[in-house]
Amino acid sequence: MTSFAEDFTALSAIGATARGGVHREAASDADAAAHEWWAGRLAAYGFRVVHDGAGNQFGLLETTPGAPYVLLGSHLDSQPCGGRWDGAYGVLAAGHAALRVARRRAGGPPPRHNIAVVSWFNEEGSRFTPSLMGSSVHAGLLDAATALDARDLAGARAGDLLAAQHRLGGPGTGAPAVSDVAAYAEIHVEQGRVLEETGTTIGLVEATWAAHKFAVTVEGEQSHTGATRMHERRDALLGAAHLTVLARELSDRLSTAQAPLHTSVSQLTVEPNSPVTVAREVRLHLDLRSPDEAVLERASALLAERVPGIEDAARVGIRVVRTHHWGVRPLPAAGVDLAAGCADRLGLTHRRMMTLAGHDAIPMNGVVPTVLLFVPSVGGVTHNEGELTHDADAAAGVDLLTEVLDRLVDGVPVG
Amino acid sequence: MTSFAEDFTALSAIGATARGGVHREAASDADAAAHEWWAGRLAAYGFRVVHDGAGNQFGLLETTPGAPYVLLGSHLDSQPCGGRWDGAYGVLAAGHAALRVARRRAGGPPPRHNIAVVSWFNEEGSRFTPSLMGSSVHAGLLDAATALDARDLAGARAGDLLAAQHRLGGPGTGAPAVSDVAAYAEIHVEQGRVLEETGTTIGLVEATWAAHKFAVTVEGEQSHTGATRMHERRDALLGAAHLTVLARELSDRLSTAQAPLHTSVSQLTVEPNSPVTVAREVRLHLDLRSPDEAVLERASALLAERVPGIEDAARVGIRVVRTHHWGVRPLPAAGVDLAAGCADRLGLTHRRMMTLAGHDAIPMNGVVPTVLLFVPSVGGVTHNEGELTHDADAAAGVDLLTEVLDRLVDGVPVG
Repeated sequence: MTSFAEDFTALSAIGATARGGVHREAASDADAAAHEWWAGRLAAYGFRVVHDGAGNQFGLLETTPGAPYVLLGSHLDSQPCGGRWDGAYGVLAAGHAALRVARRRAGGPPPRHNIAVVSWFNEEGSRFTPSLMGSSVHAGLLDAATALDARDLAGARAGDLLAAQHRLGGPGTGAPAVSDVAAYAEIHVEQGRVLEETGTTIGLVEATWAAHKFAVTVEGEQSHTGATRMHERRDALLGAAHLTVLARELSDRLSTAQAPLHTSVSQLTVEPNSPVTVAREVRLHLDLRSPDEAVLERASALLAERVPGIEDAARVGIRVVRTHHWGVRPLPAAGVDLAAGCADRLGLTHRRMMTLAGHDAIPMNGVVPTVLLFVPSVGGVTHNEGELTHDADAAAGVDLLTEVLDRLVDGVPVG
Repeated sequence: MTSFAEDFTALSAIGATARGGVHREAASDADAAAHEWWAGRLAAYGFRVVHDGAGNQFGLLETTPGAPYVLLGSHLDSQPCGGRWDGAYGVLAAGHAALRVARRRAGGPPPRHNIAVVSWFNEEGSRFTPSLMGSSVHAGLLDAATALDARDLAGARAGDLLAAQHRLGGPGTGAPAVSDVAAYAEIHVEQGRVLEETGTTIGLVEATWAAHKFAVTVEGEQSHTGATRMHERRDALLGAAHLTVLARELSDRLSTAQAPLHTSVSQLTVEPNSPVTVAREVRLHLDLRSPDEAVLERASALLAERVPGIEDAARVGIRVVRTHHWGVRPLPAAGVDLAAGCADRLGLTHRRMMTLAGHDAIPMNGVVPTVLLFVPSVGGVTHNEGELTHDADAAAGVDLLTEVLDRLVDGVPVG
C-alpha cells in the first residue's frame, strides 16, 4: 500500500502546471485522468468503485451487508491554474482514513455502518455552473438532468463529456443514494489564514457564511468606439465596470470587524468583444458573502438601490437574477464536539470557526449529519498555483479524520 | 451589367444576419465568400483581378500601359454583427464609378492614368490587430510579415487563413505598389449624425481626428472570490473596472462643444474567467480620440496621473502601452476643393468635416494624394446591424465618386 504522501505526490502530477499547481477543470482530460488514477488506487486497496448518474465516483468498503454508509469525501477537480490541495487533499484523506479504520477493525465484530469514499463531480464550478454540482445532485437539491445539461463557455455539455469518460453509472451500479448515508465527513484546506494566524492545526466548522449570488446581464447597444457620440452610447461594459466598482464599495461601506462582507464580480463575458465596438451586452457573476445575514440583506438592498443609477449613467438595462440565497447554516454541534474530542485525544490544537468558501459538505449538511474539518493553508493562498498546506498539517488531518470515522462507523450520533 | 443596387443587395446577402446586418469578420468564410463574389463581378465587368502579399484584392482597368493608377476602394470585412454599408458601400461604389468612367472614355483618347479598385484586407480589426491592416501594409506603414502573423483570440493566424482562401498573391501578379498609385479616393458612410442633422448629402473630409490608443494589462493575483479577505485581494478585474470608469470620466471632464473627447474601453480579456476566482490578469484596449490635439494630450496626461491611484485601490500593477499616436491629419485641400466642385455640378449639398472613425484612406493619406468622401448614416448608427444609408444618398455618392474619378484619371492634382 502506498502512503498518503506518495498518493498525494502522484495525484499532484496529473494536470500539473509549471508553477506548482494543477489545471484540472471538471470533465477535462486531466480531471478524467485523476479519477481514473484514483479508481485504480481504490481498487488496489480493496474498494469497489462505482459511479452514480451525476459523475460522482464512489469507493465502497462493505463489511456489514445492507447497512448504511458513513461517507467521506471531497473533489478532484480544480480551478484553472489552481492549487494542489483544494479538494484533492480531502479525497485522498478520505481514502486513507477509511483504509486505516478498516484495518483497525479487521477481525473484530463488524461495525454498525459500511464505509464509502466519494470524489464529487464539479465542485469548483469554474467550467460548468453551478458549483458543488455532484454533491448537490446527491443531496437531492439539484436535478441530475439539469446538471448534466450544463455547458461550458465553448458549448461542451457536461453529460456528454462524462459519458465519453465512462464516468456515468446507471441505476443498479450500487452507488449509494443519500438515503443510504448515515453521516458525511469532509476535510479540506482552510483557504484562509485564521488557523495559521492563531497557530492552530485543526478548524472545526460550526457554520457556513451566508451568501447571495447573482447572475447579471447588462444590455447596451453595439456602436463605434470612435464615431459614436459619448452621450449617445449605451455601453454595456461601462455598466459592468460601475457594477464591479460598486461591489467593492458595498464591502468597504458595510463590512465590520465582526461581520465582514466579501464581494466579487467574476466571469465577465463581453459581446461583441471587438476592440472598436462599444459592447452591446456583458454578462457577469456578482457574489456577496457574510457571516451576518443582516449585513448581507443590507448589501443586497443597497445593490438593488444603486442599479437604476448605473442604468442611467451608462444608458443600459441591467437584469439581476439571484441564483443562490443561503443563510448562515450551522453544522451539527454534536459533530463539532465529536471532532473536538478526537483532536484532544490526538493532541491537536483546534478552534471552532465558520467557512467562507463553499464545500461539498454544504449541500450534504441538513440532509445527513455532516462534519466539516479544516487544516491550515499557508498565507491563506488558494485558487492559485501557490496554494500550500504543510505535510505535518496534512498528516494531522488524516489522523483526525481517521479517529472521527472510527466513531462514526459505530453509529455515534453527530446530528 | 448589374446595377450598383443589385450588386449591393447580392453582397449584403453574404454573411447576412437575421437582424439585417452582416457578420463578415476578416478572413472568415463569409469574408472569403464576399471577396470571391466580388472578384467574379469584377472579372465579368472586364477588370483583371489580382491579390497582393497582404490579402488586398485589386481589380485593374488598364487603358494606358505603364501609367500610374488612380486607386479607389474600401473594405468588405465587417464587425461581428455589423452593418451592411460600412466598407462594402465604398468597394461597390469604387467598382461602379470606375466602370462608368471607363465607358464614358471608351473610344476617346486614353486618360493619363489607369484605374484600379481595391478591397483592403482587415480594415475592421475586430478579429486581427491592428485595424486598417491591408491599407497600412500597402502604404508602407506596416510590415507584411507582421500583419500576416496576427492571430485572433482563438489562435488562428491571418496569413494561414488568407493562404487557404487563395487571397495571397506573390510578386509578379501585377498588384500595384503604392509607388504606382497617383491618387487614392474612398467613399464611406459617415457613421455619425452630422450629415443627417444638417440635411447634407455629401461630407468632404478635411482632416482626421487625433487618436491615442493604448494596450493595457492589469496584473493582479488569482485567489478565491469567497475566502480571500477583501484587503488582501489583488483583483485585476477591479483595476480594469476603475480604468473603464476613468475613461468615461476623462470624456466628461475634458470634452467641450468645440473639442469633444471620445473615449472607450473595449476587448476585455479576463484570466482566468472563472466565476469563483479573483482574476489574475485583464487585458483591454483603451482609446482616446479628439479633433483637438491639446485635449488629447491633457487626457493622456490625466490617464497617466490616475493610474497609480487605481493600482493602489485594486492592489494591481497596470502596464499601459501606447500602440497608436496620431495627430490631427489634414487631407489635401485640393482634393476637397475638387470634390466640392463636382458636388456643386451634380447639385448635391455638401459640407467640410472631420472623420472620427478610422478609414483605409488614413494610412494612404500622406503617402499618396487622397480624397475621402462621406454619405449620410441614418441616426449615426454603425458597427450595428441596424446601420442604414438611404438608397438615394448611396446613389448620389456613386455619382460623385464617378465625377471625381473622371478628373483624377486626367491627372488633376489633388495634393
